[in-house]
Amino acid sequence: MKLAAYLVNGRRSYGIVSENGIIDLGARLGQRYGDLKALLAANAVAEAVEYQHQPAELALNEVDFLPVIDNPGKIICVGMNYADKRLEFNEQNPAPTLFVRFADSQTGHRQAVLKPRYSTEFDYEGELAVIIGRAGENIAREQALEHVAGYSCYMDGSARDWQHSWYTAGKNGRCTGAFGPWMTTSDAIADPQNLTLITRLNGQQVQQDSTSNMIYSVAALIEYISTFTRLSAGDVIITGSPGGVGKKRTPPLFMHAGDRIEVDIEHIGCLANQVADAPLSVPETAAA
Amino acid sequence: MKLAAYLVNGRRSYGIVSENGIIDLGARLGQRYGDLKALLAANAVAEAVEYQHQPAELALNEVDFLPVIDNPGKIICVGMNYADKRLEFNEQNPAPTLFVRFADSQTGHRQAVLKPRYSTEFDYEGELAVIIGRAGENIAREQALEHVAGYSCYMDGSARDWQHSWYTAGKNGRCTGAFGPWMTTSDAIADPQNLTLITRLNGQQVQQDSTSNMIYSVAALIEYISTFTRLSAGDVIITGSPGGVGKKRTPPLFMHAGDRIEVDIEHIGCLANQVADAPLSVPETAAA
Repeated sequence: MKLAAYLVNGRRSYGIVSENGIIDLGARLGQRYGDLKALLAANAVAEAVEYQHQPAELALNEVDFLPVIDNPGKIICVGMNYADKRLEFNEQNPAPTLFVRFADSQTGHRQAVLKPRYSTEFDYEGELAVIIGRAGENIAREQALEHVAGYSCYMDGSARDWQHSWYTAGKNGRCTGAFGPWMTTSDAIADPQNLTLITRLNGQQVQQDSTSNMIYSVAALIEYISTFTRLSAGDVIITGSPGGVGKKRTPPLFMHAGDRIEVDIEHIGCLANQVADAPLSVPETAAA
Repeated sequence: MKLAAYLVNGRRSYGIVSENGIIDLGARLGQRYGDLKALLAANAVAEAVEYQHQPAELALNEVDFLPVIDNPGKIICVGMNYADKRLEFNEQNPAPTLFVRFADSQTGHRQAVLKPRYSTEFDYEGELAVIIGRAGENIAREQALEHVAGYSCYMDGSARDWQHSWYTAGKNGRCTGAFGPWMTTSDAIADPQNLTLITRLNGQQVQQDSTSNMIYSVAALIEYISTFTRLSAGDVIITGSPGGVGKKRTPPLFMHAGDRIEVDIEHIGCLANQVADAPLSVPETAAA
Protein backbone atom coordinates (compact mmCIF):
# COMPACT_ATOMS: atom_id res chain seq x y z
CA MET A 1 0.00 0.00 0.00
CA LYS A 2 1.16 3.54 -0.78
CA LEU A 3 0.36 6.39 1.61
CA ALA A 4 0.74 10.04 0.68
CA ALA A 5 0.45 13.35 2.55
CA TYR A 6 -0.90 16.38 0.69
CA LEU A 7 -2.97 19.52 0.66
CA VAL A 8 -6.33 19.35 -1.09
CA ASN A 9 -8.32 22.59 -1.42
CA GLY A 10 -6.02 24.01 1.25
CA ARG A 11 -6.84 21.20 3.70
CA ARG A 12 -3.93 19.12 5.09
CA SER A 13 -4.77 15.48 4.51
CA TYR A 14 -3.39 12.07 3.65
CA GLY A 15 -4.58 9.06 1.71
CA ILE A 16 -3.97 5.84 -0.16
CA VAL A 17 -2.42 6.13 -3.61
CA SER A 18 -4.14 3.55 -5.84
CA GLU A 19 -3.98 2.92 -9.57
CA ASN A 20 -6.96 5.21 -10.12
CA GLY A 21 -5.98 8.08 -7.88
CA ILE A 22 -6.10 8.86 -4.18
CA ILE A 23 -8.51 7.46 -1.60
CA ASP A 24 -8.66 10.30 0.89
CA LEU A 25 -8.11 9.02 4.42
CA GLY A 26 -8.13 12.45 6.02
CA ALA A 27 -11.88 12.71 5.42
CA ARG A 28 -12.43 9.24 6.93
CA LEU A 29 -9.87 8.93 9.73
CA GLY A 30 -8.67 12.49 10.19
CA GLN A 31 -10.62 13.09 13.39
CA ARG A 32 -8.79 10.23 15.06
CA TYR A 33 -5.43 10.52 13.33
CA GLY A 34 -4.66 14.05 12.23
CA ASP A 35 -1.84 13.08 9.90
CA LEU A 36 0.28 10.15 8.75
CA LYS A 37 2.59 10.47 11.76
CA ALA A 38 -0.39 10.18 14.09
CA LEU A 39 -1.68 7.17 12.13
CA LEU A 40 1.70 5.47 12.55
CA ALA A 41 1.99 6.42 16.23
CA ALA A 42 -1.41 4.84 16.87
CA ASN A 43 -0.31 1.68 15.04
CA ALA A 44 -3.43 2.15 12.92
CA VAL A 45 -2.21 1.36 9.41
CA ALA A 46 -4.50 -1.69 9.52
CA GLU A 47 -7.47 0.67 9.71
CA ALA A 48 -6.26 2.40 6.55
CA VAL A 49 -5.96 -0.94 4.78
CA GLU A 50 -9.73 -1.43 5.08
CA TYR A 51 -10.27 1.46 2.66
CA GLN A 52 -7.81 0.40 -0.01
CA HIS A 53 -10.39 -1.07 -2.40
CA GLN A 54 -12.77 1.87 -2.26
CA PRO A 55 -12.99 4.08 -5.35
CA ALA A 56 -10.42 6.85 -5.53
CA GLU A 57 -11.92 10.31 -5.31
CA LEU A 58 -8.89 12.48 -5.99
CA ALA A 59 -6.70 12.56 -9.08
CA LEU A 60 -2.98 12.78 -8.41
CA ASN A 61 -2.86 16.17 -10.08
CA GLU A 62 -5.57 17.56 -7.81
CA VAL A 63 -3.36 17.57 -4.74
CA ASP A 64 -0.25 19.45 -3.60
CA PHE A 65 2.04 16.83 -2.15
CA LEU A 66 3.60 17.44 1.24
CA PRO A 67 6.72 15.73 2.54
CA VAL A 68 5.54 12.20 3.41
CA ILE A 69 6.08 13.12 7.05
CA ASP A 70 6.24 16.90 7.33
CA ASN A 71 6.80 17.05 11.09
CA PRO A 72 9.20 14.24 12.05
CA GLY A 73 10.57 14.37 15.57
CA LYS A 74 13.97 13.34 14.20
CA ILE A 75 15.39 13.28 10.69
CA ILE A 76 18.65 11.38 10.82
CA CYS A 77 20.70 11.38 7.65
CA VAL A 78 23.44 8.92 6.77
CA GLY A 79 26.40 10.00 4.71
CA MET A 80 28.99 7.90 2.91
CA ASN A 81 26.90 4.73 2.96
CA TYR A 82 27.76 3.42 -0.51
CA ALA A 83 31.26 2.28 -1.44
CA ASP A 84 31.41 4.53 -4.52
CA LYS A 85 30.44 7.59 -2.50
CA ARG A 86 33.07 6.83 0.13
CA LEU A 87 35.71 6.63 -2.58
CA GLU A 88 34.54 9.92 -4.11
CA PHE A 89 34.88 11.72 -0.78
CA ASN A 90 37.87 9.70 0.51
CA GLU A 91 36.00 8.90 3.73
CA GLN A 92 38.13 6.66 5.96
CA ASN A 93 36.16 6.56 9.21
CA PRO A 94 34.26 3.28 9.31
CA ALA A 95 31.50 4.44 11.70
CA PRO A 96 28.13 5.44 10.22
CA THR A 97 28.29 9.11 9.24
CA LEU A 98 25.23 10.79 10.73
CA PHE A 99 23.87 14.29 10.49
CA VAL A 100 20.53 15.95 11.11
CA ARG A 101 18.00 17.77 8.97
CA PHE A 102 15.39 20.03 10.51
CA ALA A 103 11.79 19.46 9.46
CA ASP A 104 11.56 22.86 7.79
CA SER A 105 14.26 21.87 5.30
CA GLN A 106 11.83 19.49 3.60
CA THR A 107 9.47 19.78 0.65
CA GLY A 108 7.07 17.47 -1.14
CA HIS A 109 6.81 15.75 -4.51
CA ARG A 110 6.33 18.18 -7.42
CA GLN A 111 6.99 21.20 -5.15
CA ALA A 112 9.92 23.48 -5.84
CA VAL A 113 13.30 22.47 -4.48
CA LEU A 114 14.98 25.75 -3.54
CA LYS A 115 18.59 26.42 -4.41
CA PRO A 116 19.98 28.40 -1.47
CA ARG A 117 21.14 31.91 -2.35
CA TYR A 118 24.34 31.41 -0.37
CA SER A 119 25.46 28.36 -2.35
CA THR A 120 27.08 28.02 -5.75
CA GLU A 121 27.44 24.24 -5.33
CA PHE A 122 23.91 22.92 -4.90
CA ASP A 123 24.17 19.19 -5.48
CA TYR A 124 21.76 16.26 -5.76
CA GLU A 125 21.69 13.03 -3.76
CA GLY A 126 19.09 10.33 -4.39
CA GLU A 127 18.38 8.23 -1.31
CA LEU A 128 16.12 5.61 0.23
CA ALA A 129 14.15 7.06 3.17
CA VAL A 130 13.03 4.82 6.02
CA ILE A 131 9.98 5.83 8.06
CA ILE A 132 9.79 4.49 11.60
CA GLY A 133 6.49 3.03 12.81
CA ARG A 134 7.09 1.31 16.13
CA ALA A 135 9.13 3.25 18.68
CA GLY A 136 12.14 1.83 20.47
CA GLU A 137 15.63 2.13 21.88
CA ASN A 138 18.46 -0.38 21.73
CA ILE A 139 16.79 -2.22 18.88
CA ALA A 140 18.68 -5.33 17.76
CA ARG A 141 19.22 -5.55 14.02
CA GLU A 142 17.36 -8.86 13.90
CA GLN A 143 14.17 -7.08 15.02
CA ALA A 144 14.91 -3.74 13.40
CA LEU A 145 12.73 -4.05 10.30
CA GLU A 146 9.68 -4.66 12.52
CA HIS A 147 10.05 -1.02 13.54
CA VAL A 148 9.81 0.24 9.95
CA ALA A 149 6.44 1.55 8.74
CA GLY A 150 7.55 2.09 5.16
CA TYR A 151 9.98 3.44 2.60
CA SER A 152 10.13 6.46 0.35
CA CYS A 153 12.48 8.42 -1.92
CA TYR A 154 14.51 11.39 -0.73
CA MET A 155 16.45 14.00 -2.68
CA ASP A 156 18.96 15.24 -0.13
CA GLY A 157 19.84 18.55 -1.80
CA SER A 158 23.26 19.60 -0.52
CA ALA A 159 25.07 22.94 -0.51
CA ARG A 160 28.55 21.44 -0.86
CA ASP A 161 30.25 24.77 -0.20
CA TRP A 162 28.58 24.89 3.25
CA GLN A 163 28.75 21.19 4.08
CA HIS A 164 32.08 20.59 5.86
CA SER A 165 32.68 17.38 7.78
CA TRP A 166 29.78 18.14 10.13
CA TYR A 167 27.19 18.69 7.36
CA THR A 168 24.66 20.78 9.32
CA ALA A 169 24.91 24.07 7.41
CA GLY A 170 24.99 22.43 3.99
CA LYS A 171 21.96 20.23 4.58
CA ASN A 172 19.34 22.50 6.08
CA GLY A 173 18.39 25.13 3.52
CA ARG A 174 14.66 25.65 3.27
CA CYS A 175 13.00 23.26 0.79
CA THR A 176 16.27 21.51 -0.08
CA GLY A 177 15.16 18.03 0.99
CA ALA A 178 12.44 16.53 -1.20
CA PHE A 179 10.59 13.60 0.39
CA GLY A 180 8.08 11.52 -1.54
CA PRO A 181 6.16 11.00 -3.66
CA TRP A 182 4.64 8.75 -0.98
CA MET A 183 5.62 5.89 1.32
CA THR A 184 5.27 2.25 0.36
CA THR A 185 4.36 0.31 3.49
CA SER A 186 6.99 -2.17 4.59
CA ASP A 187 4.79 -5.23 3.91
CA ALA A 188 5.09 -4.41 0.20
CA ILE A 189 8.91 -4.24 0.20
CA ALA A 190 10.17 -7.81 0.48
CA ASP A 191 13.79 -6.73 0.94
CA PRO A 192 14.88 -3.11 1.41
CA GLN A 193 18.41 -4.19 0.47
CA ASN A 194 17.40 -5.19 -3.03
CA LEU A 195 16.04 -2.02 -4.61
CA THR A 196 17.35 -0.21 -7.65
CA LEU A 197 17.79 3.53 -7.10
CA ILE A 198 18.18 5.94 -10.01
CA THR A 199 18.65 9.72 -9.94
CA ARG A 200 18.02 11.77 -13.08
CA LEU A 201 18.90 15.41 -13.68
CA ASN A 202 17.00 16.90 -16.61
CA GLY A 203 16.21 13.39 -17.79
CA GLN A 204 19.82 12.20 -17.75
CA GLN A 205 20.70 9.40 -15.35
CA VAL A 206 23.33 10.70 -12.90
CA GLN A 207 23.20 8.05 -10.15
CA GLN A 208 22.31 4.39 -10.35
CA ASP A 209 22.95 1.75 -7.74
CA SER A 210 21.27 -0.98 -5.73
CA THR A 211 20.51 -0.70 -2.04
CA SER A 212 22.30 -4.06 -1.80
CA ASN A 213 25.49 -1.98 -1.94
CA MET A 214 24.79 -0.03 1.23
CA ILE A 215 27.65 -0.37 3.70
CA TYR A 216 25.27 -0.22 6.68
CA SER A 217 21.95 -1.92 5.93
CA VAL A 218 18.67 -0.39 7.07
CA ALA A 219 18.58 -2.87 9.95
CA ALA A 220 22.17 -2.10 10.97
CA LEU A 221 21.46 1.64 10.88
CA ILE A 222 18.42 1.25 13.12
CA GLU A 223 20.49 -0.80 15.56
CA TYR A 224 23.28 1.79 15.62
CA ILE A 225 21.07 4.87 15.83
CA SER A 226 18.73 3.44 18.46
CA THR A 227 21.75 2.81 20.68
CA PHE A 228 22.21 6.53 21.31
CA THR A 229 18.76 7.99 20.64
CA ARG A 230 15.17 6.81 20.88
CA LEU A 231 13.34 6.28 17.59
CA SER A 232 9.63 7.17 17.48
CA ALA A 233 6.80 6.88 15.00
CA GLY A 234 7.32 9.25 12.09
CA ASP A 235 11.06 9.57 12.58
CA VAL A 236 12.93 9.40 9.29
CA ILE A 237 16.28 7.83 8.46
CA ILE A 238 17.75 8.89 5.13
CA THR A 239 20.14 6.13 4.21
CA GLY A 240 22.74 7.83 2.06
CA SER A 241 23.39 8.37 -1.60
CA PRO A 242 25.30 6.30 -4.17
CA GLY A 243 28.26 7.73 -6.05
CA GLY A 244 27.91 10.02 -9.03
CA VAL A 245 27.16 13.26 -7.22
CA GLY A 246 27.79 16.49 -9.08
CA LYS A 247 30.60 17.77 -6.84
CA LYS A 248 32.89 14.92 -7.82
CA ARG A 249 32.34 15.09 -11.59
CA THR A 250 34.72 16.68 -14.05
CA PRO A 251 33.50 19.29 -14.66
CA PRO A 252 31.22 19.52 -11.59
CA LEU A 253 27.48 19.29 -12.25
CA PHE A 254 25.36 21.40 -9.91
CA MET A 255 21.66 22.23 -9.88
CA HIS A 256 20.21 25.55 -10.99
CA ALA A 257 16.79 27.14 -11.28
CA GLY A 258 14.73 25.38 -13.93
CA ASP A 259 16.44 22.00 -13.57
CA ARG A 260 14.29 18.92 -13.07
CA ILE A 261 15.56 16.41 -10.51
CA GLU A 262 14.09 12.92 -10.05
CA VAL A 263 14.76 10.08 -7.64
CA ASP A 264 13.25 6.80 -8.78
CA ILE A 265 13.25 3.73 -6.52
CA GLU A 266 11.85 0.35 -7.42
CA HIS A 267 8.54 -0.55 -5.73
CA ILE A 268 8.18 3.02 -4.45
CA GLY A 269 7.90 5.47 -7.34
CA CYS A 270 9.50 8.54 -8.83
CA LEU A 271 10.00 11.69 -6.76
CA ALA A 272 10.15 14.63 -9.18
CA ASN A 273 10.93 18.27 -8.41
CA GLN A 274 11.82 21.43 -10.27
CA VAL A 275 14.63 23.57 -8.88
CA ALA A 276 13.99 27.26 -8.23
CA ASP A 277 16.06 30.00 -6.63
CA ALA A 278 15.20 30.56 -2.99
CA PRO A 279 13.23 33.78 -2.65
CA LEU A 280 14.43 36.55 -0.42
CA SER A 281 13.47 35.83 3.15
CA VAL A 282 10.29 37.10 4.75
CA PRO A 283 11.03 40.51 6.31
CA GLU A 284 11.79 40.41 10.01
CA THR A 285 8.83 42.53 10.98
CA ALA A 286 6.39 40.15 9.33
CA ALA A 287 8.19 37.06 10.56
CA ALA A 288 8.68 38.04 14.18
CA MET B 1 15.30 38.79 35.46
CA LYS B 2 15.82 35.05 35.77
CA LEU B 3 13.22 32.65 34.34
CA ALA B 4 13.16 28.96 35.18
CA ALA B 5 11.14 25.95 33.99
CA TYR B 6 10.27 23.22 36.48
CA LEU B 7 7.85 20.67 37.81
CA VAL B 8 6.03 21.50 41.04
CA ASN B 9 3.81 18.83 42.57
CA GLY B 10 3.96 17.09 39.21
CA ARG B 11 2.70 20.17 37.36
CA ARG B 12 4.83 21.59 34.52
CA SER B 13 5.34 25.26 35.19
CA TYR B 14 7.72 28.19 34.97
CA GLY B 15 8.49 31.23 37.02
CA ILE B 16 10.73 34.10 38.07
CA VAL B 17 13.74 33.22 40.23
CA SER B 18 14.11 35.96 42.84
CA GLU B 19 16.33 36.28 45.89
CA ASN B 20 13.64 34.74 48.08
CA GLY B 21 12.57 31.88 45.84
CA ILE B 22 10.37 31.41 42.82
CA ILE B 23 7.39 33.52 41.78
CA ASP B 24 5.28 30.97 39.94
CA LEU B 25 4.18 32.33 36.56
CA GLY B 26 2.52 29.10 35.44
CA ALA B 27 -0.29 29.72 37.93
CA ARG B 28 -0.71 33.30 36.70
CA LEU B 29 -0.01 33.18 32.96
CA GLY B 30 -0.11 29.48 32.18
CA GLN B 31 -3.51 29.60 30.52
CA ARG B 32 -2.21 32.04 27.95
CA TYR B 33 1.38 30.83 27.67
CA GLY B 34 1.75 27.15 28.46
CA ASP B 35 5.50 27.27 28.92
CA LEU B 36 8.53 29.52 28.59
CA LYS B 37 8.78 28.86 24.86
CA ALA B 38 5.18 30.03 24.40
CA LEU B 39 5.87 33.11 26.53
CA LEU B 40 8.84 33.97 24.29
CA ALA B 41 6.93 33.23 21.08
CA ALA B 42 4.18 35.64 22.19
CA ASN B 43 6.80 38.29 22.96
CA ALA B 44 5.24 38.45 26.42
CA VAL B 45 8.27 38.68 28.71
CA ALA B 46 7.06 42.19 29.60
CA GLU B 47 3.96 40.61 31.16
CA ALA B 48 6.19 38.43 33.32
CA VAL B 49 8.16 41.48 34.45
CA GLU B 50 5.03 42.87 36.13
CA TYR B 51 5.14 40.03 38.67
CA GLN B 52 8.82 40.30 39.58
CA HIS B 53 8.29 42.15 42.85
CA GLN B 54 5.57 39.89 44.19
CA PRO B 55 6.49 37.59 47.08
CA ALA B 56 8.02 34.28 46.07
CA GLU B 57 5.83 31.31 46.93
CA LEU B 58 8.16 28.44 46.07
CA ALA B 59 11.53 27.61 47.55
CA LEU B 60 14.19 26.57 45.05
CA ASN B 61 14.34 23.13 46.64
CA GLU B 62 10.60 22.59 46.22
CA VAL B 63 10.81 22.27 42.44
CA ASP B 64 12.30 19.79 40.00
CA PHE B 65 14.07 21.87 37.39
CA LEU B 66 13.42 21.15 33.73
CA PRO B 67 15.72 22.15 30.88
CA VAL B 68 15.14 25.91 30.52
CA ILE B 69 13.46 25.14 27.20
CA ASP B 70 12.54 21.47 27.15
CA ASN B 71 11.00 21.45 23.67
CA PRO B 72 13.13 23.65 21.40
CA GLY B 73 12.39 23.41 17.70
CA LYS B 74 16.13 23.52 17.01
CA ILE B 75 19.14 23.01 19.26
CA ILE B 76 22.21 24.07 17.32
CA CYS B 77 25.54 23.36 18.94
CA VAL B 78 28.81 25.03 18.09
CA GLY B 79 32.06 23.13 18.36
CA MET B 80 35.62 24.42 18.42
CA ASN B 81 34.65 28.00 19.23
CA TYR B 82 37.49 28.81 21.65
CA ALA B 83 41.10 29.01 20.54
CA ASP B 84 42.31 26.58 23.22
CA LYS B 85 39.72 23.98 22.22
CA ARG B 86 40.69 24.25 18.55
CA LEU B 87 44.30 23.63 19.48
CA GLU B 88 43.37 20.63 21.61
CA PHE B 89 41.46 19.03 18.74
CA ASN B 90 43.72 20.35 15.94
CA GLU B 91 40.71 21.80 14.12
CA GLN B 92 41.84 23.61 10.95
CA ASN B 93 38.53 24.40 9.20
CA PRO B 94 37.72 28.06 9.89
CA ALA B 95 33.93 27.75 9.37
CA PRO B 96 31.70 27.49 12.45
CA THR B 97 31.45 23.84 13.46
CA LEU B 98 27.76 23.05 13.91
CA PHE B 99 25.93 19.97 15.07
CA VAL B 100 22.49 19.22 16.41
CA ARG B 101 21.08 17.92 19.67
CA PHE B 102 17.61 16.45 19.88
CA ALA B 103 15.35 17.81 22.61
CA ASP B 104 15.21 14.44 24.39
CA SER B 105 18.97 14.58 25.02
CA GLN B 106 18.43 17.36 27.58
CA THR B 107 17.98 17.42 31.32
CA GLY B 108 17.49 20.13 33.95
CA HIS B 109 19.46 21.62 36.82
CA ARG B 110 19.99 19.17 39.71
CA GLN B 111 18.63 16.27 37.65
CA ALA B 112 20.84 13.30 36.87
CA VAL B 113 23.12 13.56 33.87
CA LEU B 114 23.23 10.05 32.43
CA LYS B 115 26.49 8.48 31.34
CA PRO B 116 25.60 6.42 28.24
CA ARG B 117 26.17 2.69 28.61
CA TYR B 118 27.89 2.53 25.22
CA SER B 119 30.56 5.08 26.12
CA THR B 120 33.75 4.79 28.15
CA GLU B 121 34.73 8.39 27.34
CA PHE B 122 31.94 10.55 28.74
CA ASP B 123 33.34 14.06 28.84
CA TYR B 124 32.21 17.45 30.14
CA GLU B 125 31.90 20.75 28.23
CA GLY B 126 30.74 23.94 29.94
CA GLU B 127 29.06 26.35 27.55
CA LEU B 128 27.04 29.53 27.26
CA ALA B 129 23.55 28.81 25.87
CA VAL B 130 21.68 31.45 23.88
CA ILE B 131 17.87 31.32 23.81
CA ILE B 132 16.19 32.93 20.81
CA GLY B 133 13.22 35.19 21.39
CA ARG B 134 12.37 36.94 18.15
CA ALA B 135 12.25 34.76 15.04
CA GLY B 136 14.12 35.54 11.86
CA GLU B 137 16.16 34.51 8.86
CA ASN B 138 19.16 36.25 7.32
CA ILE B 139 19.73 38.24 10.49
CA ALA B 140 22.60 40.72 10.23
CA ARG B 141 25.06 40.54 13.12
CA GLU B 142 24.38 44.18 13.97
CA GLN B 143 20.75 43.29 14.80
CA ALA B 144 21.41 39.77 16.03
CA LEU B 145 21.33 40.40 19.79
CA GLU B 146 17.82 41.86 19.44
CA HIS B 147 16.72 38.30 18.64
CA VAL B 148 18.09 36.90 21.91
CA ALA B 149 15.65 36.37 24.78
CA GLY B 150 18.29 35.33 27.28
CA TYR B 151 21.30 33.27 28.28
CA SER B 152 21.87 30.16 30.32
CA CYS B 153 24.50 27.54 31.17
CA TYR B 154 24.83 24.26 29.29
CA MET B 155 26.81 21.12 30.13
CA ASP B 156 27.23 19.49 26.73
CA GLY B 157 28.00 15.95 27.91
CA SER B 158 29.90 14.23 25.12
CA ALA B 159 30.57 10.57 24.38
CA ARG B 160 33.98 11.15 22.77
CA ASP B 161 34.21 7.56 21.55
CA TRP B 162 31.03 8.09 19.49
CA GLN B 163 31.61 11.69 18.45
CA HIS B 164 33.55 11.58 15.15
CA SER B 165 33.82 14.69 12.98
CA TRP B 166 30.03 14.80 12.56
CA TYR B 167 29.24 14.70 16.31
CA THR B 168 25.63 13.42 16.11
CA ALA B 169 26.04 10.05 17.82
CA GLY B 170 28.29 11.38 20.58
CA LYS B 171 26.03 14.28 21.50
CA ASN B 172 22.56 12.81 21.75
CA GLY B 173 22.48 10.31 24.59
CA ARG B 174 19.42 10.69 26.80
CA CYS B 175 19.95 13.23 29.61
CA THR B 176 23.50 14.07 28.53
CA GLY B 177 22.88 17.78 27.95
CA ALA B 178 22.15 19.74 31.12
CA PHE B 179 20.51 23.13 30.54
CA GLY B 180 19.97 25.62 33.34
CA PRO B 181 19.62 26.43 36.11
CA TRP B 182 17.50 29.17 34.48
CA MET B 183 17.81 31.86 31.83
CA THR B 184 18.89 35.40 32.57
CA THR B 185 16.99 37.71 30.25
CA SER B 186 19.16 39.57 27.78
CA ASP B 187 18.44 43.01 29.29
CA ALA B 188 20.43 41.87 32.35
CA ILE B 189 23.50 40.81 30.37
CA ALA B 190 25.24 43.96 29.22
CA ASP B 191 27.72 42.10 27.01
CA PRO B 192 27.50 38.35 26.29
CA GLN B 193 31.13 38.48 25.17
CA ASN B 194 32.39 39.45 28.60
CA LEU B 195 31.33 36.60 30.87
CA THR B 196 33.57 34.34 32.91
CA LEU B 197 32.74 30.66 32.46
CA ILE B 198 33.98 28.01 34.90
CA THR B 199 33.43 24.25 34.86
CA ARG B 200 34.05 22.20 38.01
CA LEU B 201 34.22 18.43 38.31
CA ASN B 202 33.83 17.24 41.89
CA GLY B 203 34.65 20.75 43.07
CA GLN B 204 37.87 21.03 41.06
CA GLN B 205 38.01 23.69 38.37
CA VAL B 206 38.57 21.98 35.00
CA GLN B 207 37.66 24.76 32.55
CA GLN B 208 37.93 28.51 32.93
CA ASP B 209 37.73 31.08 30.19
CA SER B 210 35.96 34.27 29.16
CA THR B 211 33.35 34.44 26.45
CA SER B 212 35.48 37.28 25.09
CA ASN B 213 37.67 34.49 23.68
CA MET B 214 34.97 32.99 21.49
CA ILE B 215 36.10 32.80 17.87
CA TYR B 216 32.56 33.42 16.60
CA SER B 217 30.64 35.81 18.83
CA VAL B 218 26.99 35.20 19.68
CA ALA B 219 26.01 37.82 17.10
CA ALA B 220 28.23 36.28 14.41
CA LEU B 221 26.80 32.83 15.12
CA ILE B 222 23.24 34.09 14.79
CA GLU B 223 24.13 35.73 11.48
CA TYR B 224 25.77 32.57 10.15
CA ILE B 225 23.11 30.14 11.34
CA SER B 226 20.17 32.26 10.23
CA THR B 227 21.63 32.29 6.73
CA PHE B 228 20.79 28.64 6.20
CA THR B 229 17.95 27.99 8.66
CA ARG B 230 15.19 30.03 10.25
CA LEU B 231 15.53 30.74 13.97
CA SER B 232 12.34 30.75 16.07
CA ALA B 233 11.40 31.55 19.65
CA GLY B 234 12.77 28.92 22.00
CA ASP B 235 15.50 27.75 19.66
CA VAL B 236 18.78 27.25 21.46
CA ILE B 237 22.34 27.92 20.32
CA ILE B 238 25.02 26.32 22.45
CA THR B 239 28.12 28.35 21.79
CA GLY B 240 30.97 25.92 22.38
CA SER B 241 33.28 25.00 25.20
CA PRO B 242 36.68 26.36 26.25
CA GLY B 243 39.74 24.14 26.39
CA GLY B 244 40.46 21.80 29.27
CA VAL B 245 38.12 18.96 28.35
CA GLY B 246 38.81 15.54 29.82
CA LYS B 247 39.65 13.79 26.55
CA LYS B 248 42.73 15.92 25.99
CA ARG B 249 44.20 15.64 29.50
CA THR B 250 47.04 13.37 30.46
CA PRO B 251 45.74 11.08 31.78
CA PRO B 252 42.22 11.64 30.38
CA LEU B 253 39.56 12.70 32.87
CA PHE B 254 36.10 11.32 32.14
CA MET B 255 32.84 11.42 34.10
CA HIS B 256 31.44 8.48 36.02
CA ALA B 257 28.42 7.73 38.17
CA GLY B 258 28.55 9.76 41.36
CA ASP B 259 30.56 12.63 39.93
CA ARG B 260 29.29 16.17 40.43
CA ILE B 261 29.59 18.49 37.42
CA GLU B 262 28.99 22.23 37.56
CA VAL B 263 28.95 24.99 34.96
CA ASP B 264 29.10 28.45 36.48
CA ILE B 265 28.66 31.57 34.35
CA GLU B 266 28.81 35.12 35.61
CA HIS B 267 25.42 36.91 35.84
CA ILE B 268 23.61 33.63 35.20
CA GLY B 269 24.29 31.12 37.95
CA CYS B 270 25.65 27.66 38.61
CA LEU B 271 24.21 24.65 36.81
CA ALA B 272 24.90 21.58 38.97
CA ASN B 273 24.26 17.93 38.18
CA GLN B 274 25.19 14.54 39.50
CA VAL B 275 26.25 11.88 37.01
CA ALA B 276 24.50 8.49 37.04
CA ASP B 277 24.72 5.46 34.80
CA ALA B 278 21.97 5.39 32.18
CA PRO B 279 19.41 2.75 33.15
CA LEU B 280 18.59 -0.08 30.81
CA SER B 281 16.10 1.08 28.20
CA VAL B 282 12.36 0.65 28.60
CA PRO B 283 11.40 -2.74 27.13
CA GLU B 284 10.11 -2.57 23.56
CA THR B 285 6.68 -3.87 24.43
CA ALA B 286 6.08 -1.09 26.91
CA ALA B 287 7.67 1.54 24.70
CA ALA B 288 5.87 0.72 21.45
